[in-house]
Amino acid sequence: MSATLEEVRAWDADDPLAKFRDRFVLPPGVIYLDGNSLGPLPAAAKARLAGAIEREWGAGLVRSWNDADWIGSPARVGGKIARLIGAGANEVVVADSTSVNLFKLIAAALAARPGRRAILTETGNFPTDLYVAQGVASFLPDVEVRAVPREAVEASIDGDVAVVMLTHVHYKSAARWDMAAITKRAHQVGALMLWDLSHSAGALEIDLRGSEADLAVGCGYKYLNGGPGAPAFLFVAEHLRDELRSPLFGWMGHDAAFDFIDDYRPASGIGRFLCGTPPILGVLALEVGVDLALEADLGAVELKAARLWDLFAGRVEARCASQGFELLTSRVAVRRGTHIAFAHPEGYRIMQALIGRGVIGDFRDPDVVRFAITPLYLGYEDVWRAVEILSDVMQSGAWRDLPPRSSGRVT
Amino acid sequence: MSATLEEVRAWDADDPLAKFRDRFVLPPGVIYLDGNSLGPLPAAAKARLAGAIEREWGAGLVRSWNDADWIGSPARVGGKIARLIGAGANEVVVADSTSVNLFKLIAAALAARPGRRAILTETGNFPTDLYVAQGVASFLPDVEVRAVPREAVEASIDGDVAVVMLTHVHYKSAARWDMAAITKRAHQVGALMLWDLSHSAGALEIDLRGSEADLAVGCGYKYLNGGPGAPAFLFVAEHLRDELRSPLFGWMGHDAAFDFIDDYRPASGIGRFLCGTPPILGVLALEVGVDLALEADLGAVELKAARLWDLFAGRVEARCASQGFELLTSRVAVRRGTHIAFAHPEGYRIMQALIGRGVIGDFRDPDVVRFAITPLYLGYEDVWRAVEILSDVMQSGAWRDLPPRSSGRVT
Repeated sequence: MSATLEEVRAWDADDPLAKFRDRFVLPPGVIYLDGNSLGPLPAAAKARLAGAIEREWGAGLVRSWNDADWIGSPARVGGKIARLIGAGANEVVVADSTSVNLFKLIAAALAARPGRRAILTETGNFPTDLYVAQGVASFLPDVEVRAVPREAVEASIDGDVAVVMLTHVHYKSAARWDMAAITKRAHQVGALMLWDLSHSAGALEIDLRGSEADLAVGCGYKYLNGGPGAPAFLFVAEHLRDELRSPLFGWMGHDAAFDFIDDYRPASGIGRFLCGTPPILGVLALEVGVDLALEADLGAVELKAARLWDLFAGRVEARCASQGFELLTSRVAVRRGTHIAFAHPEGYRIMQALIGRGVIGDFRDPDVVRFAITPLYLGYEDVWRAVEILSDVMQSGAWRDLPPRSSGRVT
Repeated sequence: MSATLEEVRAWDADDPLAKFRDRFVLPPGVIYLDGNSLGPLPAAAKARLAGAIEREWGAGLVRSWNDADWIGSPARVGGKIARLIGAGANEVVVADSTSVNLFKLIAAALAARPGRRAILTETGNFPTDLYVAQGVASFLPDVEVRAVPREAVEASIDGDVAVVMLTHVHYKSAARWDMAAITKRAHQVGALMLWDLSHSAGALEIDLRGSEADLAVGCGYKYLNGGPGAPAFLFVAEHLRDELRSPLFGWMGHDAAFDFIDDYRPASGIGRFLCGTPPILGVLALEVGVDLALEADLGAVELKAARLWDLFAGRVEARCASQGFELLTSRVAVRRGTHIAFAHPEGYRIMQALIGRGVIGDFRDPDVVRFAITPLYLGYEDVWRAVEILSDVMQSGAWRDLPPRSSGRVT
């Protein structure tokens, strides 16, 4: 992309999404390209949380379960997320972590497909997806985790497979699965399809119903800007709900939690996939991020992300051509999510140098630098400036002074 | 207890724990007797959470995983809780909900006792404990939930039992198990002992190590004052840690989470019982409550609770003798926790009338009213006044004007 800085500034001036920038708190001097790891603080979350803490917890005390409808919040916020992912309001609930929700739905899928014992997934999938599947397999007899390379996934969907579990957008490469096509293939052999939307919910237009997806989970703290360790969500297609049962029976998933009876009886709605008491502060913070995403037009967000992405890639080509970056992400917009990833043997130290200059992306072992493109708080000139700083870091060799990665450090 | 109001006021004046009252935010006109459902807001939590939101999330962004040690917070706060329950710092971690932690530990216990298929517990235990056990049993072959009446528990601990799961202090009656005696009995037949400390952690002096307990879970939002839906904690005795494996493999329990490798390898420490990304705002709010509990001497707290309890029971006898309340809680301090419970056929409406007058306790189906005795923010005169208001409610019959309980309402 051969745009000039003047042209880029003109794009910002014309950008209908530019008005969202002030809805986020971002520190001065930072270009934030890590919204796929932790989304920034929505300005409204400060007041919302202060109110939840002082008015609802402090003054309302236990009465707030009813008076502030804490009890309804997992389903309420789930219903809002549903609108972002093409689901029905009664198909999504906020609960637990992505990992715990994966466990629930994988185990439920295996129970719903007796005789089939394979969980099919991709090698190099996000680790927790693989680990949760391995945990289910370690716990249930005869279950097999069939992890195959990406290119072999489709051909490996056969009659032994109870559930196909894939991440819609890959956390490293940003490669995007064709949701409708893979789901159709799973259904052809009678398998259930479970999508991890952690790297796409809030970033892309997703149509779970149109794709006939069965199950999904997703993360609250990435593109939904729900805060550190925000609760996750899960989706179960309405026609499957009564058939599927999470192994994590808990009182909040009971049909009559406050009857305090000894026998579990799952709730009739999507609430049956709740387990313990919901993390209210986290649910309410997430709601602010979700409300903000609902204000924007996700089609416009996805379109701007594609343009920002093209600008980023083009500027890296123009400014860092001989610096050893290998583009890992597809140039074809529909085949990728909204981050851009490069392999570079010195990726860790390069990323540390960038962060030191206020350009915050992240590093993923062994050699991947990632930059998230988040149109609600990034402009075209931000991307331009980020690549200028990357170019400076590379040409000055400033990264060479930095220590290598030490174990235990979050990257 | 035949104290006079003057004597009661003198006790407050001499109370070494009275100084803690101002460390909590409590609305004017409220006598809060529901700290066993949701503890009140510690005053310090407001500033701590505002800092976490604005400085750590807002300004620090993803860097706060390292710079604010978010990554270390589950083990750090777990180590503090350990000091409240007689455990080693490396035996406790903050994670998920009580329900999810019960699932992890019940499943791990069954795997560690191959050939034994019974989970022994008490009928009328807190529902989620029963439900989680039923969930494990519904997904694993041949597992039996053996729920027996309280008085039959000890005799039912036999060689078929993999794990005995009991709640240290009963959520309704406040009946307290003799932790050391039951644990010894479980060990005599080779079973593991799992304690739910939800109604005792932060309220009583607990000695998990001295009792040789194997496993425990507990709630963050009751006597630890961690906020609505605060994360829970779990305990695994050090000598069992390497042998036990939670079925909920997740990336935060991995030995090298940020190596992003495909195969699960549990962490060497108590962190192996983590699963997904921890709910940071919840963990940090909980830390404030735990720090406050650590400032107080739990021995003094338990002693004052016993005196407050005696005063409450004595005043109910003096003022409401013919009003139909049946005391459900033992008069012997070591046989109970720190709440007092009565059965009354009109308990629901009576409790609503009390709440309407600022005396906040709660109701548990079918007929139980509960009042939590929390010495850090309750004085003797508070208890005196609460019973005076109860007496007024009963003598005036004010509760008769209130509607009966409607389903779905949190009690």
